[in-house]
Amino acid sequence: MTNFADRLITAIEAKQNPCVVGLDFHSARLPAFVSDAMKANPTPEGYRTAISDYFRLILDGVAPLVTAVKPQFSLLESLTWVGAQILIDITDHARSLDILVIADAKRGDIASSALGYARAFLDPPDGPDFARGYNADCLTVNPFLGRDTLRPYVDACDSAGKGIFVLVKTSNPGSGETQDALLADSNRPVYTSYARMVDELGQSHIGDRGYSSVGAVVGATYPQQAEELRSLMPRAFILVPGYGAQGGTADDAIRCFNPDGLGAVVNASRSITCAFDAPDISPTNYAATIRDQTLRMIDDINSALARRRS
Amino acid sequence: MTNFADRLITAIEAKQNPCVVGLDFHSARLPAFVSDAMKANPTPEGYRTAISDYFRLILDGVAPLVTAVKPQFSLLESLTWVGAQILIDITDHARSLDILVIADAKRGDIASSALGYARAFLDPPDGPDFARGYNADCLTVNPFLGRDTLRPYVDACDSAGKGIFVLVKTSNPGSGETQDALLADSNRPVYTSYARMVDELGQSHIGDRGYSSVGAVVGATYPQQAEELRSLMPRAFILVPGYGAQGGTADDAIRCFNPDGLGAVVNASRSITCAFDAPDISPTNYAATIRDQTLRMIDDINSALARRRS
Repeated sequence: MTNFADRLITAIEAKQNPCVVGLDFHSARLPAFVSDAMKANPTPEGYRTAISDYFRLILDGVAPLVTAVKPQFSLLESLTWVGAQILIDITDHARSLDILVIADAKRGDIASSALGYARAFLDPPDGPDFARGYNADCLTVNPFLGRDTLRPYVDACDSAGKGIFVLVKTSNPGSGETQDALLADSNRPVYTSYARMVDELGQSHIGDRGYSSVGAVVGATYPQQAEELRSLMPRAFILVPGYGAQGGTADDAIRCFNPDGLGAVVNASRSITCAFDAPDISPTNYAATIRDQTLRMIDDINSALARRRS
Repeated sequence: MTNFADRLITAIEAKQNPCVVGLDFHSARLPAFVSDAMKANPTPEGYRTAISDYFRLILDGVAPLVTAVKPQFSLLESLTWVGAQILIDITDHARSLDILVIADAKRGDIASSALGYARAFLDPPDGPDFARGYNADCLTVNPFLGRDTLRPYVDACDSAGKGIFVLVKTSNPGSGETQDALLADSNRPVYTSYARMVDELGQSHIGDRGYSSVGAVVGATYPQQAEELRSLMPRAFILVPGYGAQGGTADDAIRCFNPDGLGAVVNASRSITCAFDAPDISPTNYAATIRDQTLRMIDDINSALARRRS
């Protein structure tokens, strides 16, 4: 089973950039051809077709360009079982296009419930097709419940060649209260203890290229903390949200990279998929916009990395 | 819109106990009449019927007896869209039996994604039925991402008369590393800072009976911490997992109650629904076992509360 970090590096080198496109279902920011199709046929089948076609259009545009896609599970959960079918359509189509899927579901629970999530997202249990979960390449996980609760995901990294990104320092404005509070034993922020956990959990899961399949999430909106965290988890891949619509710049985001130019992937969601001008944009023009915005992001990130090298 | 804590107290007084039954899908611990039905018809319809019938049998048995039920979302996620349909069947049947539903999904994300979860679980958006989420009475949430990320759920408490239980001290063996670490500013454990957050967030959501719709999760497996946390969040309802199969006793669990005999609900899952002797138990005998185990739990918890009062 190929180590996930090795697979990620292979994809980065093939695509010549470390960019990820987030697939978010923002019902108020859809092109009219999607929301009109939903209105015209407000049935489970109608919604599924309209929304899955929308994501397939985006996937067809970005899959040849970027390293991975990151479907956001929360925004489809109010569609209950139809949302789950759409998430299967997304992961199936991504697989057919041979692009890595990072399931952004930020799951976290204990014992058998954690194992349930590990199976549902990373390590399919035996059973009929609909009972084998989403089989993503990688999952975002919440470590607050404790190191023991991460074990099932880490085991899945080995048994199924998958990866995880553990939340360490999130990109939102309010992450400081919980994540930057200083700990008494070290006088260092809480996030450093999670970084140590990621580093320690990852040691026995390092691939041929020197990186671990146990990675971390560090927001581009906190560039100083990113630099500190980069050095605390030298072998972890970092998933960097917060670039683009949330205000993080390319120069902020590249603080999460190692001097070898590897060690991080940068995500953009709304700045790629919600950047169209007129709501009545045609599917063809929308696809062109997606492509333009993605190329712009790739150039922005790669230019910043090149500036740092020189 | 009736405050959730008031609704919870009404249910506790009607049922004369503060017990909750967890609805967990443990595929390896099912009665044979359920697993045989799944094997006989391994289709989406076959699984849905077998598993939803199983949960309806449990619900029919426990709804007249206890305060609330707590479906565990993780264990159905590997069934993808069929799992989501089963969760809808569970919540619909619970509603028809007029029992409160605590969605145990431990969700946590930022910004629009947090809002997505709040809508999906607590405050249904406009739309066709399948696009209006699970409409539970209450949701377990993970606060690690920060106070700002709890805001959409807290708003839903007001707008939809719903509640949340915020993870503060979880019942698993490994919760100490992340939750008991001492903070430099107070020299007190991390969990106390989350308790303060719960207390502060809850202040403006207190019902007629003096309790807030913003509650907390505190494991029965940590009775000393429970006593400390009880005093730090005097108006929060505490959801107490860890009783029964995880090793917490009734005397441990009642540390989460206030002197008024209110302020907590105690959950049991496996010790109720997986306590049958022979795997080939009949549906009738299984229903009787569920009822017996539930009555035993109620007596155990109520006796401990009575001992403390006297």
